[in-house]
Amino acid sequence: MDLAADKAAGPATGPAATLDDLLTPALVLDGRRLRDNARRMRDRAEALGVALRPHMKTAKSADVARVALAGAKGKGVGGVTVATLSEAEYFLARGFTDITYAVCIVPQKLGRVAALMAKGADLKILTDDASVAKAIAGDRRRFRVLIEIDCGEHRTGVAPDSKAMVEIAEILGSGKNVTLAGVLTHAGHSYSCRTPAAMAKIAEDERAAAVAAAERLRRAGFECPTVSVGSTPTARFASNLDGVTEMRPGVYLLGDLFQAGIGTCGVDDIAASVLASVIAHRRGENALLIDAGGLALSKDRATQALPDDQGYGLVCAALTGTPIPGLKVTSVHQEHGHVAADGPLPFDRLPVGAKVRVLPNHVCMTAAAYDRFHVVDGGGRITAVWDRCHGW
Amino acid sequence: MDLAADKAAGPATGPAATLDDLLTPALVLDGRRLRDNARRMRDRAEALGVALRPHMKTAKSADVARVALAGAKGKGVGGVTVATLSEAEYFLARGFTDITYAVCIVPQKLGRVAALMAKGADLKILTDDASVAKAIAGDRRRFRVLIEIDCGEHRTGVAPDSKAMVEIAEILGSGKNVTLAGVLTHAGHSYSCRTPAAMAKIAEDERAAAVAAAERLRRAGFECPTVSVGSTPTARFASNLDGVTEMRPGVYLLGDLFQAGIGTCGVDDIAASVLASVIAHRRGENALLIDAGGLALSKDRATQALPDDQGYGLVCAALTGTPIPGLKVTSVHQEHGHVAADGPLPFDRLPVGAKVRVLPNHVCMTAAAYDRFHVVDGGGRITAVWDRCHGW
Repeated sequence: MDLAADKAAGPATGPAATLDDLLTPALVLDGRRLRDNARRMRDRAEALGVALRPHMKTAKSADVARVALAGAKGKGVGGVTVATLSEAEYFLARGFTDITYAVCIVPQKLGRVAALMAKGADLKILTDDASVAKAIAGDRRRFRVLIEIDCGEHRTGVAPDSKAMVEIAEILGSGKNVTLAGVLTHAGHSYSCRTPAAMAKIAEDERAAAVAAAERLRRAGFECPTVSVGSTPTARFASNLDGVTEMRPGVYLLGDLFQAGIGTCGVDDIAASVLASVIAHRRGENALLIDAGGLALSKDRATQALPDDQGYGLVCAALTGTPIPGLKVTSVHQEHGHVAADGPLPFDRLPVGAKVRVLPNHVCMTAAAYDRFHVVDGGGRITAVWDRCHGW
Repeated sequence: MDLAADKAAGPATGPAATLDDLLTPALVLDGRRLRDNARRMRDRAEALGVALRPHMKTAKSADVARVALAGAKGKGVGGVTVATLSEAEYFLARGFTDITYAVCIVPQKLGRVAALMAKGADLKILTDDASVAKAIAGDRRRFRVLIEIDCGEHRTGVAPDSKAMVEIAEILGSGKNVTLAGVLTHAGHSYSCRTPAAMAKIAEDERAAAVAAAERLRRAGFECPTVSVGSTPTARFASNLDGVTEMRPGVYLLGDLFQAGIGTCGVDDIAASVLASVIAHRRGENALLIDAGGLALSKDRATQALPDDQGYGLVCAALTGTPIPGLKVTSVHQEHGHVAADGPLPFDRLPVGAKVRVLPNHVCMTAAAYDRFHVVDGGGRITAVWDRCHGW
């Protein structure tokens, strides 16, 4: 929705025209930062010689996906990755047909997958389990399946040198309507790295595991067209992706304090923030309260593991999104955030009713509470409102 | 929505008739436990001689509010408490007119409050700030205002013996269209108690602070009809509420592992749980993965502070909701929950595709991700689907 036409109506009757008009809490997206983040990753994918299939579980927004894929080559609007079938339905309804659902499928969900395929989705599903492969192979409907490979995170996936991997391929191969689309892996353990060198090493493990799996399947007689890797840290620091066909980073589009803490972006690259109002002063305790608490910010404490623990988020000026030195959200209740400061809190600059923006610890969790982004371009004017999907 | 009529249509075309039919993750509500929890708290309120104004920030459901207030005396469907104006709008649209919005208001939100009043809400708003009181008093619209009292939590609120409290009352009293509705306090620090005796003591502090504030305002010439207290621990263990007019517990309706851990309910009173599917086995690590992760369960770690740290939730049998001994969710990613066990994991009982239910650490956070409750009555048959509100 472009708000230019609505602006004349004013904030009392129409949507908010500026951050000043917007009621809080609300999710703000800096369009310039988003475009810069998107461009940098497209450049990375081009330099590495792989397709970019951004993971949309973070942004859950078709408009963000269009920015991510702007200028991407190939047919249509480009491929995306999703983490729920609800996201797949949302993206298909907005013209995205090439979709990878990157969480292991269970047989009961095949009906919903088939319904998406019948509506025109080229939906790839994922498994690491022989019993699920049997259910897929025994189904009369058509499915495209990736085998999930474990490259060291030990969350889901089979080892590239395992008997199980070839067994799953054989079961899928026995299905008349099944296409083995390839292999997929995710180096989630790259999040525990703290240096570019460590992330580059995990990126190489990720690449090597996926390529080894694909080559072994090919030697066993299976086509394996897709070799998919991806996480923001490994996409950012991989030295090469030889043998890989696509990468699936996601959080890079918005960024957050955890990603800044491990060095995949700067704090001034973080594109998403929560607009909040000061609702109370506690001068005696050098603290103030905002109307963004555990639901509006999430209870994610990812930065607790980093040298700079950012509490529940860094407090910024509302207009510029620039951190106010020393201010962070130190505790949360459901709808209350408690803000404390290193030095004296600037109460006069932040009267009750004043607005701030809070940079999130982990934007995937924080953004999930909101149905829309309010897009700004480095200032206070809202240039667009973009919908988001939610739930399952 | 009653599903009896839909059952004939079957799960392929209509809503799920049983938990077996339901796709995961989904939020399940045990109607029998809900009714028992509701009845016990109505009995408490009656014994203590106060009105019950349940806090609906937890359940966010008109159907749950109707159960909470079933048999309550007084006109209409009874009063509720909310934590967002979005909740106020939701409840008003479903026939609840007597609403207290128990988070400090900011002037910018007065327009939305006035719109609710114009639509028939008897909406009480809250402040602890003189500048906000001035904005309210200077407004030409009609408002009903409670002064928030700090009874020891030190989150928001003015002390009952403070100059600020009387000053706020005087400012509100100067407004032609303002009704000072009374005082409200919340003993959130009761959550740090671990024994009934400690909770009873905080309950007495809560009562004494609210009553002292009301008496002081009355001596200063103000009417103070409402004297409102409430939290689930203090409502459960208060020895008397003399001088109080109403209490506002909320989480008692659903219960959670934190409340069970501090002793305000039993684990077998917890009425809300997340239905999830096993999506992968990791036999080598004695672990399995479910499709309920950080979004479906929330990242709340409230039980970390208790002797029994329940991780991200206790894993239960899907049909009965009874804990499977030793199984808990020990880590989460966005859509993955990692389940570990004290002893050998019963993989054969829990094949990939099998369902479990997960009891939440903090149900206010967990339930917030869902748009609806699937109601069961101790078994697997879904007797109703109840909507929930979300967002702001």
